[in-house]
Amino acid sequence: MSFRSVAIIGLGLLGGSTGLAVQKFLPDVQTTGWDANPETRARATERGLVHTVHDSAEDAVRDADLVILCVPVGAMGAAAAAIAPALRADVVVSDVGSSKQFVAKALAEALPGVAVIPAHPVAGTERSGPDAGFATLFQKRWCIITPPADADPAQVAALSQFWEALGAKVELMDAQHHDLVLAVTSHLPHLIAYTIVGTADDLEGVTQSEVIKYSAGGFRDFTRIAASDPTMWRDVFLSNKDAVLEMLQRFTEDLTALQRSIRVGDGQALFDQFSRTRAIRRSIIEEGQDDARPDFGRSDHAGS
Amino acid sequence: MSFRSVAIIGLGLLGGSTGLAVQKFLPDVQTTGWDANPETRARATERGLVHTVHDSAEDAVRDADLVILCVPVGAMGAAAAAIAPALRADVVVSDVGSSKQFVAKALAEALPGVAVIPAHPVAGTERSGPDAGFATLFQKRWCIITPPADADPAQVAALSQFWEALGAKVELMDAQHHDLVLAVTSHLPHLIAYTIVGTADDLEGVTQSEVIKYSAGGFRDFTRIAASDPTMWRDVFLSNKDAVLEMLQRFTEDLTALQRSIRVGDGQALFDQFSRTRAIRRSIIEEGQDDARPDFGRSDHAGS
Ligand SMILES: NC(=O)c1ccc[n+]([C@@H]2O[C@H](COP(=O)([O-])OP(=O)(O)OC[C@H]3O[C@@H](n4cnc5c(N)ncnc54)[C@H](OP(=O)(O)O)[C@@H]3O)[C@@H](O)[C@H]2O)c1
Ligand SMILES: NC(=O)c1ccc[n+]([C@@H]2O[C@H](COP(=O)([O-])OP(=O)(O)OC[C@H]3O[C@@H](n4cnc5c(N)ncnc54)[C@H](OP(=O)(O)O)[C@@H]3O)[C@@H](O)[C@H]2O)c1
Repeated sequence: MSFRSVAIIGLGLLGGSTGLAVQKFLPDVQTTGWDANPETRARATERGLVHTVHDSAEDAVRDADLVILCVPVGAMGAAAAAIAPALRADVVVSDVGSSKQFVAKALAEALPGVAVIPAHPVAGTERSGPDAGFATLFQKRWCIITPPADADPAQVAALSQFWEALGAKVELMDAQHHDLVLAVTSHLPHLIAYTIVGTADDLEGVTQSEVIKYSAGGFRDFTRIAASDPTMWRDVFLSNKDAVLEMLQRFTEDLTALQRSIRVGDGQALFDQFSRTRAIRRSIIEEGQDDARPDFGRSDHAGS
Repeated sequence: MSFRSVAIIGLGLLGGSTGLAVQKFLPDVQTTGWDANPETRARATERGLVHTVHDSAEDAVRDADLVILCVPVGAMGAAAAAIAPALRADVVVSDVGSSKQFVAKALAEALPGVAVIPAHPVAGTERSGPDAGFATLFQKRWCIITPPADADPAQVAALSQFWEALGAKVELMDAQHHDLVLAVTSHLPHLIAYTIVGTADDLEGVTQSEVIKYSAGGFRDFTRIAASDPTMWRDVFLSNKDAVLEMLQRFTEDLTALQRSIRVGDGQALFDQFSRTRAIRRSIIEEGQDDARPDFGRSDHAGS
């Protein structure tokens, strides 16, 4: 099986990128969409994020054999409830939310009896809204699918092929493991970045203009992710609380150890730790998830 | 006055970039150099990082009216002692070290009676060694000069003009303030990045290959600076201990507050904090220290 009509609920960065990617890479597939925000719907129509932007959630999903919810994690339940009455009997409902156990539960509750297969394309930028999306966002990025135990293998395969067609590499995982892995690779880094940018904004001895001027010393690298959408990230932390708090605990212990090495002047311990982390960077570049080129290779899969 | 013969001690990223930049932007100025490592000297000769690579530190500085020490902060004292016997009476000795109170003290002790004017170009990459340098590293970046109270204004002006000729914007500052500002904008970010990359490398439940695969979720941004030179950064933390520990204390307090908001589920507090940091990113882009383009504008001042 393969999908012939895809409805996208939520037309921001992820929803818009999905709509544009389907039109580019699966030109025979029909796309419809809806967003709770009328201004976003208007802008989505102007940009042609999907073939047809509808005025109600129900109309948007009526003909779809795949519905993808692209709203903040905390809005997944409400978005699912709004489409429930109009879904086709053979529909697959999926999503792109950044935490998976919480979303699986919310969707199962709102859509009893419906085939729900949650997913998470690990691809994004710090921008949001209907102007942020672009068709190549998913190129060479991973999409993690977290099928429930009773999922239909044919539907899982169809969803995998869908994401592969948009340029992604697909991995299946259980939702709990997803939430742990992403807590390290995404949620904790965002929390740390938000914190340090806040700390720097709040010092007596150093002005904000100095922080900005000398940001090329390293601080700059943190500000990009600390500019990410506040609603999305509030929801991520609230919905993946346990894994985030566990990772934060590990991080704090490691930071305390380094702090001690600095305080007592243990140069060898610092040197050893700093040598170890160098190797990880090399592996990431080799795996193609970043790049040593001056633009970090971002032009390979960026919009403009 | 302006300098006519510049000697560079230490021919790694900063020394090599300085040598190449002088040849490109100040073609009438003679450049000489030396590095403690014979292999680095050989490679520096091959790449033409300076006009003449000498076999001894003394020979390299004998004719120079400006000497720039480009060695790790902890090696500044030894590098200064090695050149002391051969310095011209009218020489200015400067450096590029990332912490300034410690270096000022080390150079004053090793070079009594010599005109020492420390400086720090806030420009770098995560690479090091004789192959890392390029002529445009300093373009549009700030160079902070920290003259001692009794510095000759004409010499300070000449050093400012020198860095401006290489493309930098110059700011004068006292060394103590420099060390506080850079603790926030550079040293703390590096410490945090080194820590989180170490934490991620060390988990039972998550494999290293998973961390690498899903690094595009945010982790990736931290690995670049966590790949920086271990010797350099060991020396930075040991030499700017007080300011780094103070900033780390602030950061830890702020992180504890966010941790608490997550634990008790205070979504409003999270939202407010995440909204505040977005504005800072915008200011950095406006100031030209980063860029919203896909390559972050790095091509504007990169080597290749
Ligand atoms: N950004 C990333 O890097 C990234 C990466 C991977 C996955 N994700 C996930 O993708 C999802 C969407 O994130 P995004 O970055 O695309 O955010 P976004 O650009 O803000 O788009 C979300 C859109 O959904 C709309 N919306 C909110 N509640 C809705 C509802 N109940 N029904 C219909 N539309 C609703 C929002 O409208 P308003 O703005 O008016 O509320 C907004 O237009 C989130 O679950 C996030 O975790 C994000
Ligand atoms: N990297 C950055 O982003 C950056 C930015 C601004 C300022 N800085 C500062 O610039 C300085 C140099 O850093 P870098 O990044 O250029 O490091 P680098 O690439 O490792 O270069 C340093 C060079 O100095 C040599 N060296 C060590 N001790 C010496 C001595 N006593 N005499 C002569 N040569 C010696 C080293 O040789 P071996 O390798 O054999 O030891 C190496 O070739 C440091 O003080 C750093 O704080 C760095």
